[in-house]
Amino acid sequence: MESPWKVYTSLYLLLIAIGFVSIAGKKTPSSRRAAFHFDESLINIWPLPKQFTAGNRTVTVDPDLALDLQGSGRVSTIVAEAFDRFRNVVFKQQSGYAGGEFDISKITIVVASDDETLQLGVDETYALYVSEGRGRGGEEGKLSIVGGASIEANTIYGALRGLESLSQLCIYNYKLKVVEVNKAPWIIHDEPRFSFRGLLLDTSRHFLPVNAIKQVIESMSYAKLNVLHWHIIDEESFPLEVPSYPNLWVGSYTKWERYTVDDASEIVDFAKRRGIHIMAEVDVPGHTTSWGVGYPDLSPSSNCTEPLDFTKEDTFDVISGILTDMRKIFPFGLFHLGGDEVHDDCWISTPHVNQWLQQRNMTTKDAYQYFVLRAQQIALAHNWVPVNWEETFNTFKENLSSQTVVHNWLGPGVCPNAVANGFRCILSNQGVWYLDHLDIPWEDFYTAEPLEGIHDSSQQKLVLGGEVCMWGETADTSDVLQTIWPRAAAAAERLWSPRDTTSSRNLNATVLPRLQYFRCLLNHRGVPAAPVTNQFARQPPIGAGSCFAQ
Amino acid sequence: MESPWKVYTSLYLLLIAIGFVSIAGKKTPSSRRAAFHFDESLINIWPLPKQFTAGNRTVTVDPDLALDLQGSGRVSTIVAEAFDRFRNVVFKQQSGYAGGEFDISKITIVVASDDETLQLGVDETYALYVSEGRGRGGEEGKLSIVGGASIEANTIYGALRGLESLSQLCIYNYKLKVVEVNKAPWIIHDEPRFSFRGLLLDTSRHFLPVNAIKQVIESMSYAKLNVLHWHIIDEESFPLEVPSYPNLWVGSYTKWERYTVDDASEIVDFAKRRGIHIMAEVDVPGHTTSWGVGYPDLSPSSNCTEPLDFTKEDTFDVISGILTDMRKIFPFGLFHLGGDEVHDDCWISTPHVNQWLQQRNMTTKDAYQYFVLRAQQIALAHNWVPVNWEETFNTFKENLSSQTVVHNWLGPGVCPNAVANGFRCILSNQGVWYLDHLDIPWEDFYTAEPLEGIHDSSQQKLVLGGEVCMWGETADTSDVLQTIWPRAAAAAERLWSPRDTTSSRNLNATVLPRLQYFRCLLNHRGVPAAPVTNQFARQPPIGAGSCFAQ
Repeated sequence: MESPWKVYTSLYLLLIAIGFVSIAGKKTPSSRRAAFHFDESLINIWPLPKQFTAGNRTVTVDPDLALDLQGSGRVSTIVAEAFDRFRNVVFKQQSGYAGGEFDISKITIVVASDDETLQLGVDETYALYVSEGRGRGGEEGKLSIVGGASIEANTIYGALRGLESLSQLCIYNYKLKVVEVNKAPWIIHDEPRFSFRGLLLDTSRHFLPVNAIKQVIESMSYAKLNVLHWHIIDEESFPLEVPSYPNLWVGSYTKWERYTVDDASEIVDFAKRRGIHIMAEVDVPGHTTSWGVGYPDLSPSSNCTEPLDFTKEDTFDVISGILTDMRKIFPFGLFHLGGDEVHDDCWISTPHVNQWLQQRNMTTKDAYQYFVLRAQQIALAHNWVPVNWEETFNTFKENLSSQTVVHNWLGPGVCPNAVANGFRCILSNQGVWYLDHLDIPWEDFYTAEPLEGIHDSSQQKLVLGGEVCMWGETADTSDVLQTIWPRAAAAAERLWSPRDTTSSRNLNATVLPRLQYFRCLLNHRGVPAAPVTNQFARQPPIGAGSCFAQ
Repeated sequence: MESPWKVYTSLYLLLIAIGFVSIAGKKTPSSRRAAFHFDESLINIWPLPKQFTAGNRTVTVDPDLALDLQGSGRVSTIVAEAFDRFRNVVFKQQSGYAGGEFDISKITIVVASDDETLQLGVDETYALYVSEGRGRGGEEGKLSIVGGASIEANTIYGALRGLESLSQLCIYNYKLKVVEVNKAPWIIHDEPRFSFRGLLLDTSRHFLPVNAIKQVIESMSYAKLNVLHWHIIDEESFPLEVPSYPNLWVGSYTKWERYTVDDASEIVDFAKRRGIHIMAEVDVPGHTTSWGVGYPDLSPSSNCTEPLDFTKEDTFDVISGILTDMRKIFPFGLFHLGGDEVHDDCWISTPHVNQWLQQRNMTTKDAYQYFVLRAQQIALAHNWVPVNWEETFNTFKENLSSQTVVHNWLGPGVCPNAVANGFRCILSNQGVWYLDHLDIPWEDFYTAEPLEGIHDSSQQKLVLGGEVCMWGETADTSDVLQTIWPRAAAAAERLWSPRDTTSSRNLNATVLPRLQYFRCLLNHRGVPAAPVTNQFARQPPIGAGSCFAQ
């Protein structure tokens, strides 16, 4: 699922160097301060809520802010934990406020449902109110809306989204030494545009420690992304423990670059507590060389280490065993079966495989279809909706399970075709949403539109959303976060906010400063998001300057 | 304190691009697994302890490991907190051990002194014992040394170093699902070679949020670095709150890129709990343009924004006020007064400054000395030992306070000269220990020797140690950690471990695999250390592969 990255990488880096050489010639002495003017009228919630009204008051927030949890959902520990994280993020600085009583000293969160189930399409709606405060010494403002701040949601996951928005409204005033909310009173009604707002993480090309994955998940929650597509395994390494086939993770790089079942479960739980699904992938039949390290018979031969040997029933038994074990770990309703880049040359050149085909009068294309459909049946038998990369749809759409979710990556136009054929679709067009393509600027991530070319509303409903892809050839623990951020945030707003609000013709005025602000917010929270307007992703700043201006 | 970085940066990046272009042409298919062989005989404690003996047993560690804190130091909360961090780092993975009782279920830490004072030269000695275990079912091993594991130290800070070493011995066995210590029994007697093992962090060229600074400090403790040289202020921005002169931080980039007094105190406390000093710097009289944003009179004129205007007594009052306020924050005995790169051209071209000089028959060089010596007096009056960049020593060593610590940066040979003149010295030769010089490979950091050219033992004692410098022009929150690590670790071993053990002629065999291992350990703990052998610092991996091989 990756275009020839090496060529890209070298090209990018050469361009970077040329860019830097010319930039480095410039002198940027004391003009720095003049260069930065932050437009205080902009709304610094990322992604932008669906509907909101703001006022012109500034209210103070009590560092001992109390939580009043109401509704059936009050029994959930997930909201209470999210509130603790909220407090850690918002009240980082000491308060030394000398202004008397605080305007907001309690937040009321009302969650209607006690159902903690996290499935695709779970209700993420919330309403957020921040009152205009009591004024100095008076009480009238306190009663203006509901008193202080409140969040109302149907589910705990809606409440999490509301808390995230509120956290972004809370800004420390360094002069008064107090957390404030500007532009109160706030009335926000918000819900996502798409139910699937994903990020792919590849732990085969480089192993990412559990800690690093958790950092990614935590940062996703700040941008309201809600699906981590965990591309666990690929041809380079097989890091996951599969109890039914204990030699599979012998294909890990080292004995230390592995995930136990408990590790994977911990990641799923950590994500769930942030309202994030984990969509696991087992990419078959290509990209499977690492399987053969532990079980050589899965490869057609020692010269042909992939695609998997479809002539043996054992191969499908192993896939079934893997999915049986993984079903206990991954509760999400979608499961990714890959299916991309199946290079069948060495099937032909392997005598027993070629013979099998000839006996059945099958082509390698037939074998590819045979394999994918059997894998789909296994996934369906495990009560999973199968997701496949687009080649399966492109090659034999007429035989795919009608439940299949088509995952676009090669280029534009696939989702219109898929939904016209009744399939659901996820957009990951590599020209705009591949994070490892370092030359794609934030604007291209921002303006990529999942419904492009789809005009029929019933077909539009089949587009689940989209996913930015962080392939791992050149991304490991040392650079994965700054390659993801801030560009993933651009896609996140596209996927959450209404289409009309994300379709501004003047991105530099209305979106760029907000994204720069969000990047600095990520930095403030410990996420090493790269400068927004640097010429190539994850490059360091080109010189001294304010975070907000870079 | 920075050579013309822009030229360097562009040069490096061009070289990087060229390097990548050539590298990208190579194919590296399935050779990956063959390429990696980890030498299990190597000792994976970084930096290497002074003395140790190891055995050949593997012992298991109870995930419910108990702490038995003894000695006068048992009253300190610092060791107990460090033990909590130790547990978080060591017992990340779930234990599913089915092997019965654990060999080590208690660690005894004996700290002789209850004195929590952290000053230069504080005793960091420790002894660490890990018994060879009880064996399977027997009890004999349990009594072999002291039972389980123990650390003995004179101070709590020695105990912290011992805990760090023990944490590095504890390795998760993915097959048995248990933390083990290999090569038991262990007897380690350890102490640092130098008392000053520093890292400079520059928060003026780019503001680093408190969170980012804490991440740096936490990571320093893993390599037993013990001084964070906080270059808080420079010409680009003045982020620190100074209550006596409340307009100084108007010189910050934005109202959000600031440190309150409480922020600074929190950093000092956070560092102390890890046995790390904070050495603050106020660099005068050059590098001070940002002071003039809030107090324009501190600059000679609007055309000459630095060096500071020495003709006004107010200038020295402000310095005195800053140091008075900072003394309440920074308990460390050393204070850095800068003194580097004083470009005096615009002193001459400013009429009232030039007149002042002529009236007193002084040159600009005299004025530079006058300024530095007055600043030294202010620091001394605040009971601080003044540290100055080497230009002060190079220019008027005969008049410097004898207490002055000379901080080398320009090149080799300065410390021998300084100690021959009776001054103490810190090595930061930019050719080997500047982290923002991306072309300096780890080997050069490793082989830089603070006592090079100093043969007299009484003079050797005047070398406090050394410091690697992370200047901030191209380092912000997005890239500071991967620019620091792993190269700072190479210097850390040089500064901690005995000279003979760090003077191997075969670095690639004896040191490189250990450093690669330590880099992966940092990754595992969430620190985004860059690949060790990449051609230029902080570059991403050039292709898929094991952490331990990159």
